Amino acid sequence: MTGPAGPGFPDVAAAAARIAGHVHHTPVFTSHLLDEWCGAGVVLKAENLQRIGAFKIRGATNAVLSLSDDEAGRGVAGHSSGNHAAALALAARTRGIPAHIVMPSNSAVVKKAAVEAYGGIITECEPTVAARDEMLAEVLAATGAVEIHPFDDERIIAGAGTAALELVSEVDDLDVVVAPVGGGGLLSGTSIATHGLRPGIRVIGAEPELAGDAALGIATGIRQPPMPPVTIADGLRTSLSERTFGIISRHVEAIVTVTEDEIVEAMRYVWTRTKLLVEPSAAVAVAAVRRTDLAGARVGVILSGGNVDVDALPW
Amino acid sequence: MTGPAGPGFPDVAAAAARIAGHVHHTPVFTSHLLDEWCGAGVVLKAENLQRIGAFKIRGATNAVLSLSDDEAGRGVAGHSSGNHAAALALAARTRGIPAHIVMPSNSAVVKKAAVEAYGGIITECEPTVAARDEMLAEVLAATGAVEIHPFDDERIIAGAGTAALELVSEVDDLDVVVAPVGGGGLLSGTSIATHGLRPGIRVIGAEPELAGDAALGIATGIRQPPMPPVTIADGLRTSLSERTFGIISRHVEAIVTVTEDEIVEAMRYVWTRTKLLVEPSAAVAVAAVRRTDLAGARVGVILSGGNVDVDALPW
Repeated sequence: MTGPAGPGFPDVAAAAARIAGHVHHTPVFTSHLLDEWCGAGVVLKAENLQRIGAFKIRGATNAVLSLSDDEAGRGVAGHSSGNHAAALALAARTRGIPAHIVMPSNSAVVKKAAVEAYGGIITECEPTVAARDEMLAEVLAATGAVEIHPFDDERIIAGAGTAALELVSEVDDLDVVVAPVGGGGLLSGTSIATHGLRPGIRVIGAEPELAGDAALGIATGIRQPPMPPVTIADGLRTSLSERTFGIISRHVEAIVTVTEDEIVEAMRYVWTRTKLLVEPSAAVAVAAVRRTDLAGARVGVILSGGNVDVDALPW
Repeated sequence: MTGPAGPGFPDVAAAAARIAGHVHHTPVFTSHLLDEWCGAGVVLKAENLQRIGAFKIRGATNAVLSLSDDEAGRGVAGHSSGNHAAALALAARTRGIPAHIVMPSNSAVVKKAAVEAYGGIITECEPTVAARDEMLAEVLAATGAVEIHPFDDERIIAGAGTAALELVSEVDDLDVVVAPVGGGGLLSGTSIATHGLRPGIRVIGAEPELAGDAALGIATGIRQPPMPPVTIADGLRTSLSERTFGIISRHVEAIVTVTEDEIVEAMRYVWTRTKLLVEPSAAVAVAAVRRTDLAGARVGVILSGGNVDVDALPW
């Protein structure tokens, strides 16, 4: 159950130094209306305003800048239908090396366009896990590139943790930090960063009920397979790896699940009241705060991203 | 053509001191993508993140806090179908005095709800200028309240100018400042603040073609009546007063008009690329920057607000 080692707090601090200047130090926001709605004092960490519109650029940049010159010379490769694809492409461009991205053929056109705009080299595959893994193996064999996994990677986890590092450093009276959980890279990094700085802060995960594998896994102590990819929170459909399961088991107090209706309601509330455009995965964290009794607490929430199709809004 | 006196720069500075602590010092944002899209170095002043979701709270708060105790004791009154209504209600609540708001019967339900949430007392009227003025006169007679006009008021203009005061103080290399123009309160205040701090900065107004009365008026030197209220930029449908016409004639280099398609395109671009939810009136200023040849310039843009009906998006 322990799983492969996660990064430690020093790795998160090193990541922050490594990626400074390449990613934004994102602002935090508060709103009295949101406090009332959530029943807690909420501080939003606006990773939707991050480069590529999501926290993913933190981990990708940390991973790419951690490579030796020899490794970097071979380029990087990864699979993603979403934010990791754009993040890896942009991070590679920052270092001037190629990024080979395996994307399912049903990826949104806008996501493919973003990867191409950053100079990423896309290889399409059938939209199944088997086809994806097979295609990535082919790409790795053909190019010799270094694989950068979207979450099951110490460098990615340490980079993801730098958002919480900024948040907890800047807001010194937080009682709780909440982050959404899919594959667990963000929640793992968040928990390591938070407890490294302030061990007393409670760290809570937020997950869609329809992708509640992490909640079930942590509750039972048995890592669960992914559930059918039906939740609107498309960034949270994956399940934990051994590594992220181990880190989250050690660091995270609870994982709160929320319904699809609650996700949409929270997304709409954040849009209309804070004027911040957030994607469903980010809204999951806000919905979890609203659902949980945190009266009197100061709660930091990682708004993971803002990449959403404005032509197909869920209300 | 000179019109009633506008406020001077000292009035804007005094307004800033008066309203500090009651309104947000809003952040500024930059985006490489937006720079490329606009063909200039753009700095967004995010008044969409302001209290009530728009810059209007600045002027309303300045006006309400400028009242003597005797005046304040009588309460305030005003007419508005939009942001000024919410602003006046919240500003009055800040001082603990009543706000009587005359709103057309066809105002959006969400706008009425906002006014009521801030404790404003709504009187409905038929949606015509005559009915509105008549109803406001009745309310003023019945209550003895002090009228606060949405833009034709020195205190409102000085308050509106505090957004540009923050922007120009904070970003020290601006060549141009752009603000949308409807009744002209924001553009007047913006120009007075900007030139008070840095006389060399060019100030440009941005207006929908379909409400292009200010552009025509400045071009001809003859103040124009309002055009039919058809532009999507619902905050910019009014025309200039003598006062704002005089200020803008003296301070503003040009007024750039944009089409409805350009407004929608700019709104969508800002939403998807910067993750800031802006209303059409704010997008008008971005569209004007894109349309104007400002290559090599650093351009500050007042994003006036973010109050938009997310159930009826224009794309």
